Amino acid sequence: MDQKMQHMGERARAAARWLAKATREQKDAGLERIAAGLQARQDDILQANQQDVAAGRENGLSEALLDRLTLTPARLAGIISDLRNVIALPDPVGEVFEQTTLPNGLCVHKQRVPIGVIGVIYEARPNVTLDVAGLALKSGNAVILRGGSETINSNRALVEVIRNALAVCGLPEDAVQFIDDPDRKRVLDLLQMDRYVDMIIPRGGASLHEFCRQNSRIPVITGGIGICHLFVDESADLEGALQVIRNAKVQRPSVCNALDTVLVHEKVAQSFLPRLVETLQADGVTLRAHESALPLLTVNGEGELPASVAPAGPQDFDTEWLSLVLGLKVVSGLDEAIEHIAAHSTQHSDGILTRSEEHAARFVSEVNSAAVYVNASTRFTDGGQLGLGAEVAISTQPLHARGPMGLRELTTYKWVIRGENHVRP
Amino acid sequence: MDQKMQHMGERARAAARWLAKATREQKDAGLERIAAGLQARQDDILQANQQDVAAGRENGLSEALLDRLTLTPARLAGIISDLRNVIALPDPVGEVFEQTTLPNGLCVHKQRVPIGVIGVIYEARPNVTLDVAGLALKSGNAVILRGGSETINSNRALVEVIRNALAVCGLPEDAVQFIDDPDRKRVLDLLQMDRYVDMIIPRGGASLHEFCRQNSRIPVITGGIGICHLFVDESADLEGALQVIRNAKVQRPSVCNALDTVLVHEKVAQSFLPRLVETLQADGVTLRAHESALPLLTVNGEGELPASVAPAGPQDFDTEWLSLVLGLKVVSGLDEAIEHIAAHSTQHSDGILTRSEEHAARFVSEVNSAAVYVNASTRFTDGGQLGLGAEVAISTQPLHARGPMGLRELTTYKWVIRGENHVRP
Repeated sequence: MDQKMQHMGERARAAARWLAKATREQKDAGLERIAAGLQARQDDILQANQQDVAAGRENGLSEALLDRLTLTPARLAGIISDLRNVIALPDPVGEVFEQTTLPNGLCVHKQRVPIGVIGVIYEARPNVTLDVAGLALKSGNAVILRGGSETINSNRALVEVIRNALAVCGLPEDAVQFIDDPDRKRVLDLLQMDRYVDMIIPRGGASLHEFCRQNSRIPVITGGIGICHLFVDESADLEGALQVIRNAKVQRPSVCNALDTVLVHEKVAQSFLPRLVETLQADGVTLRAHESALPLLTVNGEGELPASVAPAGPQDFDTEWLSLVLGLKVVSGLDEAIEHIAAHSTQHSDGILTRSEEHAARFVSEVNSAAVYVNASTRFTDGGQLGLGAEVAISTQPLHARGPMGLRELTTYKWVIRGENHVRP
Repeated sequence: MDQKMQHMGERARAAARWLAKATREQKDAGLERIAAGLQARQDDILQANQQDVAAGRENGLSEALLDRLTLTPARLAGIISDLRNVIALPDPVGEVFEQTTLPNGLCVHKQRVPIGVIGVIYEARPNVTLDVAGLALKSGNAVILRGGSETINSNRALVEVIRNALAVCGLPEDAVQFIDDPDRKRVLDLLQMDRYVDMIIPRGGASLHEFCRQNSRIPVITGGIGICHLFVDESADLEGALQVIRNAKVQRPSVCNALDTVLVHEKVAQSFLPRLVETLQADGVTLRAHESALPLLTVNGEGELPASVAPAGPQDFDTEWLSLVLGLKVVSGLDEAIEHIAAHSTQHSDGILTRSEEHAARFVSEVNSAAVYVNASTRFTDGGQLGLGAEVAISTQPLHARGPMGLRELTTYKWVIRGENHVRP
């Protein structure tokens, strides 16, 4: 274990212990000071970010990555506004629940407490630094951040603002620490620090999640990878279905809750598929059609497909597209739809479009995804959209929390048991 | 990966998917059939257990281990009765909570669902096989059990009864599988099966927990190791404190929630310590006294200690005694008590004995253990005692659940979101 990393862990533990006792007022003051600091230091931050963007361009980063990496005055204003939203949220710490008095007179309740120290490993986006730090501080947790090397100058500048603000407010600056060393060995160190770190959140692609699961001694919250489905049932409102599918696919195709596969009931396929192709074509969407759908898509007697349709390849239904591509399959009914989803979904967000209460109920009961939809776009799987204010991650694994993780999901609880010198018989 | 283990994983996943849809009636019928099967097959089970006990005796197992290993008609009756208690508990699956309608009209709620497949690695006690299988089935989860090799014949007999009962009731027998291979490599295989297993519960000593954390790709719920403290505050009811300490130490010293260290406020130490020594001596308890306590314990002018008191060694306050030994330290007040607990507790069960509301509140707020007590014995940290009916483990880590884990702690949730063709703006 790297000595510096161990010190980081020790300091994070101490800061977490301090923060666990902090009042809402203290924490909100720190967050407000961070927001003010970001405003005051805007030029330095944008300059540091420009260094990263220039280096990224030199190193041949894709335009999509460069876009994620880039901060602008407007984006920084958005980050500051998100931070103020977190300030406005209630403090989850101290919440008392499941209060009861046992037959023997013992008074028992649970009380919400911070988790402790959270390690977050993420990639190019500098806004994650503030999303995570803001939610962690508000919920009384310390964080150790490991951003991507391509954003190191931006993160240095942002973390400096955060730590200064904490110090000025009398909060422990070690509540937010940043691994300022691009060596990947430091990620390994972090994953081994189970004495100091209670939860690991990787935010990135499948290979990052795999690396964390393989190497971590600490529980890893995996998620954020969505192969998302919508099933158009026989009784669906087809016009409504078209709009929901379009929204789920087109509104922001690069994110995890965007739609990847449409399943269409065979009884409505003949009328629905041509409309679907036409609508999506106008948005620039390319369809990858299962052989079950191909006969219904040909535009002339010779089996020719429309320009925006190609036959699906063997991996296509196991691909998170993150772009304007959409898988398409005709199914014999609800059972086959549920089977397909069980086989191909990453259990992120899957939905049914139907007017049958019975089918909706079966879909909701039998599809085991973090978010299950009836007649709505999968794009709502988002902490902000679902009322959490913000999110540190979207979990697709069953432990601790599922779906968007906000403030409450960064807490755990203790049992508090009060008696009058009670002894166990 | 061992081929057999992989098949086990695949079958467990399929069984879990089936069980997730099972009704309470189906699950309870299966549990009732298991209970009946245990009664009917009592002789075979006890005979298989006698084989284990004989082999254990030959292999030099300690009397304590042999005792844990041994089944008797009375103990089997107890296991059957525990199973019937689980039958009587409500089914947590399907519970709807946090129901809300968002400003945009989306109806959102959370719905409790089983975790999926749970891997449990445990040691000599055959009752764990039924505790875990019973709670897992009731909460709709499949389990893969890995009992200690010293109890393999007992577990074979018990698992046969369980699987037969499931098959007879039309439930998937692969919901309860048992790794019938003493090779430790199979434990490693289990820990690597993150595709098939969602949560690992080790039930055993620190080295088993360490092994699991080191080697698991699956989140591990560690716990069950308790270095437990009681702090006798200056305002404590000393007679009551004596009875609580006695109960916490003596009532069942071999378990994780038994008391390990007493901290005594210096202002009451002089009057309290001699009474404590006298009371506990009668129960056969040996005290390991910190130097802060020694001057108050001498029985004559030459600094001689009572027979039941020895000076504490350097590791004594970091030892889970599991026997009639108790650490003792005099502290200057609440602050030092909280500091000592932060430095030495395993965050299992720690308490204060006080008549000061202010001190009780500070202790509850600042001691971050899974169970925090005011004026009660630490022995209540137990699923049965706290109203959960039973427990699969007592978690001392913050993720997912803390303290005793019963039926609800074997579930997670899905978000259910219903709209009228809602799209995200």
